[in-house]
Amino acid sequence: MNIIDTLLRPDLRGREPYGAPQLDVAVRLNTNENSYPLPPAVVASIEKAVSAVAPHLNRYPDRDAVRLRADIADYLGYGLTPEAVWAANGSNEILQQLSQAFAGPGRVALGFTPAYSMHPIITTAVGGAWIEGNRDRRFDLTVESAVEQVLRHRPDIVFLCSPNNPTGTALTPEVVTAVVDAAPGLVVVDEAYAEFARAGTTSALDLLVGRPRLVVTRTMSKAFGLAGARVGYLAADPAVVEALRLVRLPYHLSTVTQVVARAALEHAPLLLATVDAIREQRDRLVRELTGLGLDVAPSDANFVLFGGLSDSSGVWRSLVDRGVLIRDVGIPGWLRVTAGTPEETGEFLDALRIILNGES
Amino acid sequence: MNIIDTLLRPDLRGREPYGAPQLDVAVRLNTNENSYPLPPAVVASIEKAVSAVAPHLNRYPDRDAVRLRADIADYLGYGLTPEAVWAANGSNEILQQLSQAFAGPGRVALGFTPAYSMHPIITTAVGGAWIEGNRDRRFDLTVESAVEQVLRHRPDIVFLCSPNNPTGTALTPEVVTAVVDAAPGLVVVDEAYAEFARAGTTSALDLLVGRPRLVVTRTMSKAFGLAGARVGYLAADPAVVEALRLVRLPYHLSTVTQVVARAALEHAPLLLATVDAIREQRDRLVRELTGLGLDVAPSDANFVLFGGLSDSSGVWRSLVDRGVLIRDVGIPGWLRVTAGTPEETGEFLDALRIILNGES
Repeated sequence: MNIIDTLLRPDLRGREPYGAPQLDVAVRLNTNENSYPLPPAVVASIEKAVSAVAPHLNRYPDRDAVRLRADIADYLGYGLTPEAVWAANGSNEILQQLSQAFAGPGRVALGFTPAYSMHPIITTAVGGAWIEGNRDRRFDLTVESAVEQVLRHRPDIVFLCSPNNPTGTALTPEVVTAVVDAAPGLVVVDEAYAEFARAGTTSALDLLVGRPRLVVTRTMSKAFGLAGARVGYLAADPAVVEALRLVRLPYHLSTVTQVVARAALEHAPLLLATVDAIREQRDRLVRELTGLGLDVAPSDANFVLFGGLSDSSGVWRSLVDRGVLIRDVGIPGWLRVTAGTPEETGEFLDALRIILNGES
Repeated sequence: MNIIDTLLRPDLRGREPYGAPQLDVAVRLNTNENSYPLPPAVVASIEKAVSAVAPHLNRYPDRDAVRLRADIADYLGYGLTPEAVWAANGSNEILQQLSQAFAGPGRVALGFTPAYSMHPIITTAVGGAWIEGNRDRRFDLTVESAVEQVLRHRPDIVFLCSPNNPTGTALTPEVVTAVVDAAPGLVVVDEAYAEFARAGTTSALDLLVGRPRLVVTRTMSKAFGLAGARVGYLAADPAVVEALRLVRLPYHLSTVTQVVARAALEHAPLLLATVDAIREQRDRLVRELTGLGLDVAPSDANFVLFGGLSDSSGVWRSLVDRGVLIRDVGIPGWLRVTAGTPEETGEFLDALRIILNGES
């Protein structure tokens, strides 16, 4: 054993770094990116914003990202004020800050798996204990089951994920409010994919009033198509934001990140115009995968989880061989595919049809 | 007590967020920024680099920042390879990742205060215990004292800071190597201000070969004048870098941050040309403050700690009243001032002279 490995925290030894395998293939539908490049108008605004701040990068950023938080609050609506919004380098950093402030050593977090796999990784990386809650066989989470598990484990933080990654389905507001009522601590609803939800879906943002223990996290990586810019945010009671300022690294969000995010928010309607196109491909995936006789989870996200595969790892590898990269999320028999452009989605479906015909 | 405050980790309750008071005054010499704006050639390279990546921000960044790490390795020299280099959002995030991987719950970190005040904050925020080691009355750290304290406390991480913030003085290589020999765990030398050191100062980078437990952290915020871009890095045994990949948030460093840093590194000699000008003002501060009968710590940094003030808080406030913001680092009788442009430095010295004449 290397000397450094002996110095590593014991619970980290032998672990592998988190991250989807990255392969250089033509069709990348593995990390739920938005397949559409940024439109020229957005690129121009980003260029202009960066040019304006570049000479002054010798100065530290606004530690509290006040203008960005005001812009996010305006974008979200729901009467949110800048004091109820916080931003960081991706929603992962938001989740880490929440975990540091409200969980951490001697405390426990509960999630209902399969869900976003960073929730347990972040929880344990900051020294907290992770309790793996359950969903039913079809990945659903009912009010009764969620409440029973919360009352049994009394977690300091509950992570909900709606729409859920990797299964794709949004939670009902009844589940969210019942969990908040039952939980002794913070309830974090990770809404990274909220903009893709089917019509009539309630965002947890609509449930914030009167629920100070409810926190909603979002990201600009998906619907906004800004994965490379790393901007995540939350909406919550201002007291939650104040608490995060105790654990955030000072100047955590660069001046450049702040102005890039603001430039993108100026063009929110233009950027979110991709959402409809992506939903169409998502619904096409659900329809065509169902037509192939596969088991398909209802999706409110920009991806679809499909099952009923006798050899899901083999199918994943065969897709890679055909230049299509999707995600093996570790649920035997199931794979996850991002809804891409019509062309990318078509290439995936064509490749899968050929593979399944060969398999049968 | 607010409901949220009752949910906060008990050790965080009642704390204040870290950060120097920010006041809108003409002369800001409080956070050791580089007073020189980026030259037009650097701004042009940043603009070009951001323009090239902006349309593709819909894709996640390179998770391992491979090209940036190669450029940093080239810049540093010492035969370092990209595998021996890691980068993050400011050296604060580097220090946090080191603390998560090698300290954290049930483990202890030792520093010799006064030193960089984020070392204890980061240590405790990730759940580790902080041991406050001592320096002698003149802020020096001798081999004998450092080794004795290390042997007594057996810390999992030792934080050294060279040049030390807020005192300004670099450590001798004898102290660093003796601490590495005595320490059972990692020894992190925080070299945020290394480029400003007086001629003949040895960087801990020169001590890395054969010392796998030695880690050197640096930043682009000071000598490079890129505080607003948030880029910190380390050089260490590649096994340390591998360990950090277990706790780093995936895609922690945005595509934009990566290309801005690379554009700046292209112009390293141009950017580092400010270092000589800043050193001159630093030496001027040492000279003129000594001439005022004050006690001045020897400085290898871009700031000077001076003492012998009967009412340091009062002097700090009087300077603010005269439009000059410096830093009260909490050592009674002492204040810290950044070496700015000749004009800024002159304004500070003029204001201080008037105040001290009034005081006496």
